[in-house]
Amino acid sequence: MGDLDIRHAAETDVPAIVAMLADDPLGARRESPDDLAPYLAAFKRLKADPNQHLVVAVRDDRVIGTLQLTLIPGLSHKGATRALIEAVRIHADERGSGLGSELIRWAIDTARSLDCNLVQLTSDKTRTDAHRFYERLGFTASHEGFKLSL
Amino acid sequence: MGDLDIRHAAETDVPAIVAMLADDPLGARRESPDDLAPYLAAFKRLKADPNQHLVVAVRDDRVIGTLQLTLIPGLSHKGATRALIEAVRIHADERGSGLGSELIRWAIDTARSLDCNLVQLTSDKTRTDAHRFYERLGFTASHEGFKLSL
Repeated sequence: MGDLDIRHAAETDVPAIVAMLADDPLGARRESPDDLAPYLAAFKRLKADPNQHLVVAVRDDRVIGTLQLTLIPGLSHKGATRALIEAVRIHADERGSGLGSELIRWAIDTARSLDCNLVQLTSDKTRTDAHRFYERLGFTASHEGFKLSL
Repeated sequence: MGDLDIRHAAETDVPAIVAMLADDPLGARRESPDDLAPYLAAFKRLKADPNQHLVVAVRDDRVIGTLQLTLIPGLSHKGATRALIEAVRIHADERGSGLGSELIRWAIDTARSLDCNLVQLTSDKTRTDAHRFYERLGFTASHEGFKLSL
């Protein structure tokens, strides 16, 4: 088994990322992997924003994981920049392999190296396994996460 | 009583914003209103990022409210751009006046006008009044909010 590489996503990675987003109990209801056009347009928006870090985990030339790290400057917490983690997905063949921990640790290390003071994420209340996972990695479930669809 | 104006914050608004951030049970422990330097540096980072909208609510030339709206492009939800609300504060003299609702409605309307599909925020679990407030405005507490200080 080859080494794991975590690197910024390229446009050619988009189909593999979308396949992982859709291969998920919640994602299956809201993604459209047969129509990549809206994802490719979104990829252009991501690439144009230097505070967005969409990354893929790659082993033996296969994309096996992804997450998005966003840097958010702000005034609160003495002008702290916070890092937000979104869209964490691990390929079905790789779940339980420790890859999720490696990806989140990469995000934490990257946030620290970019002078962030806080890392935050939300997780759907139905994903109870994910909640234990984040607590093991040092996160505290201190907040309620509110969403409003437009 | 004059009209309410919600507008992008200027550098000269920073002291009033920081005073509101500090005049709060949680903020009092983590802000330093007597040393504005880190806030002014953070303000420059905010202004340099076109996806950040730090706004103030102003009436009769007094800053009486603030929030930060961040636009986050992404691949999930068919390439949706989400809007994140952070650092919502209402001046102590104005709480219970309906100003909070006006500010959040401004954020929702702005997110919609900027083609966002989702508005999200987290609220500390101790702020139970705030949770009822967000639910009245149509938000759903569907997620756990995790934080990790660096």
